[in-house]
Amino acid sequence: DSSLKVFTLNSNPKLAEEIAANIGVELGKSSVTKFSDGEIQINIEESIRGCDVYVVQSTCEPVNQHIMELLIMIDALKRASAKSINIVMPYYGYARQDRKARAREPITAKLVADLLQTAGASRAITLDLHAPQIQGFFNIPVDQLVGVPILSSYWSKKGLDDIVVVSPDHGGVTRARNLADRLKAPIAIIDKRRPRPNVAEVMNIVGNIEGKTAILIDDIIDTAGTITLGANALIDSGAKAVYACCTHPVLSGPAIERIQNSKIEELVVTNSIPLKEDKIIDKITQLSVAPLISEAIIRVHERQSVSILFD
Amino acid sequence: DSSLKVFTLNSNPKLAEEIAANIGVELGKSSVTKFSDGEIQINIEESIRGCDVYVVQSTCEPVNQHIMELLIMIDALKRASAKSINIVMPYYGYARQDRKARAREPITAKLVADLLQTAGASRAITLDLHAPQIQGFFNIPVDQLVGVPILSSYWSKKGLDDIVVVSPDHGGVTRARNLADRLKAPIAIIDKRRPRPNVAEVMNIVGNIEGKTAILIDDIIDTAGTITLGANALIDSGAKAVYACCTHPVLSGPAIERIQNSKIEELVVTNSIPLKEDKIIDKITQLSVAPLISEAIIRVHERQSVSILFD
Ligand SMILES: Nc1ncnc2c1ncn2[C@@H]1O[C@H](COP(=O)(O)O)[C@@H](O)[C@H]1O
Ligand SMILES: Nc1ncnc2c1ncn2[C@@H]1O[C@H](COP(=O)(O)O)[C@@H](O)[C@H]1O
Repeated sequence: DSSLKVFTLNSNPKLAEEIAANIGVELGKSSVTKFSDGEIQINIEESIRGCDVYVVQSTCEPVNQHIMELLIMIDALKRASAKSINIVMPYYGYARQDRKARAREPITAKLVADLLQTAGASRAITLDLHAPQIQGFFNIPVDQLVGVPILSSYWSKKGLDDIVVVSPDHGGVTRARNLADRLKAPIAIIDKRRPRPNVAEVMNIVGNIEGKTAILIDDIIDTAGTITLGANALIDSGAKAVYACCTHPVLSGPAIERIQNSKIEELVVTNSIPLKEDKIIDKITQLSVAPLISEAIIRVHERQSVSILFD
Repeated sequence: DSSLKVFTLNSNPKLAEEIAANIGVELGKSSVTKFSDGEIQINIEESIRGCDVYVVQSTCEPVNQHIMELLIMIDALKRASAKSINIVMPYYGYARQDRKARAREPITAKLVADLLQTAGASRAITLDLHAPQIQGFFNIPVDQLVGVPILSSYWSKKGLDDIVVVSPDHGGVTRARNLADRLKAPIAIIDKRRPRPNVAEVMNIVGNIEGKTAILIDDIIDTAGTITLGANALIDSGAKAVYACCTHPVLSGPAIERIQNSKIEELVVTNSIPLKEDKIIDKITQLSVAPLISEAIIRVHERQSVSILFD
């Protein structure tokens, strides 16, 4: 059987280390540096001829840099005769540009899928894509792993009482339902609507949260506006306490300040995107997706179904 | 006939303005901004349905950002039913990664060509590609314009006496020959060689430069090591004065300091790459390629040959 190699680029080196250790291989030797003018220079420092190669890279900020690193790495691996090039993208950047909402918009999530295939990717392993339709943007196999079980285990161990799982909007109800089932809890939904044009949005809570401990769940937390306003609305409507969780902690712009100042007791996230120094605060707990991803890589490599990891 | 539109992205807005003015059209209305997390957001603010669109973008530093802007713009134009998408790339980034010089290297210049075509480009207009072979990386028409006539006119007007045109290495002799013919001057070549391993390179000058005014010419000046060492070697070997020119002023890292401290009297460059504030120094003269590029766009649009612009 052909041998399995795991390489990292610059987005998630620690996660890649953890994945390689779980699988029981050394991380592949390579370097990703920049020339004086900012062009990316990649050196692969060991033979990968005939190997099944797994490249770990989230296309988080700096997103364009991380996409180009991944594309150039795929090109180098292809020309170095890898048997298969499997891209492991715990976070898929540009996933929110997945449809034309207005005239003359690009569909960048599809563009990125096309670019990865053009470079030579044979398969993608992803985690909680913002929209499941993005799988269909690819003509190569895409395994989509699910983060809810990791978040759910954490909440189970924490042992909060009288929980209600809350979706911050209509789009996230399926995810909230999944977490609620695992925690044997009911769900509620924050129903935002604008009564008339040019009038502030009203947050109406559908479901019973009175005196309960609410756990908000979303896939991405970016500027944290939705989640912190939602948390405050829950408290104002009678929730006893509010916790929150998400798979992808983008946490850009005012996010950290908003979370600090919000009524959220604790925010639980995964390491699909590593937290930079200035984003590591007491309120945030980060869980590793390395066990999930390593298991997926082993199953793919051994030609076993990975669907067992989907729920 | 279908109408011609010129759009700019973020690399060369002034050049694009000049090109549009020369052609006699308004610059197309669009905005290229960033979301809070660094993802590029492009809005095309006028209909381009059925139009021949020309997008001006050099993929200079920040190169990965500029490449992604271009790819996303092409995607948006394609989905907005442009009749043709013509990319005008005065400077083509990653052009020096055009072959595998060592094992397991990427060929990023080819990757970029593939990405542009995948996004939906119909034609490329380029200027002094680092290697002419890069044209062959594309399966769409590529017009390659030549910068030497612009540089040559400048030197002719300046009226220097007793000129010798010097190539800083073997790779640049054809370019030096072209400039020398226009200036009716002889050529010389700087012949670098390493007598034994681990011994400093020796610069040997092939051709007569004694008492003459040397004009060094290269396509790209990046960190300016080659050109400034070459200039000093020419003076040491008896040249009366040294001038230099190139098409693409990358000028990264120590370039400006080296040029300041070198024996180069004046460096003449084009605006294929705009000079940032801190690179505008007295010794550097920048010439516009707008007349050349506008002429090429008009000829392409009117289905006339552009080969007249090649020499
Ligand atoms: N990086 C981004 N940051 C913020 N908003 C974005 C980003 N990318 C896309 N969007 C917008 O988010 C919306 C889609 O998000 P959603 O409705 O959650 O799928 C669209 O209006 C997009 O214009
Ligand atoms: N952005 C860059 N900056 C400096 N050197 C580069 C860059 N890209 C490629 N190279 C190197 O430049 C050499 C090719 O340049 P050339 O021989 O002039 O075609 C190769 O050794 C490349 O590794």
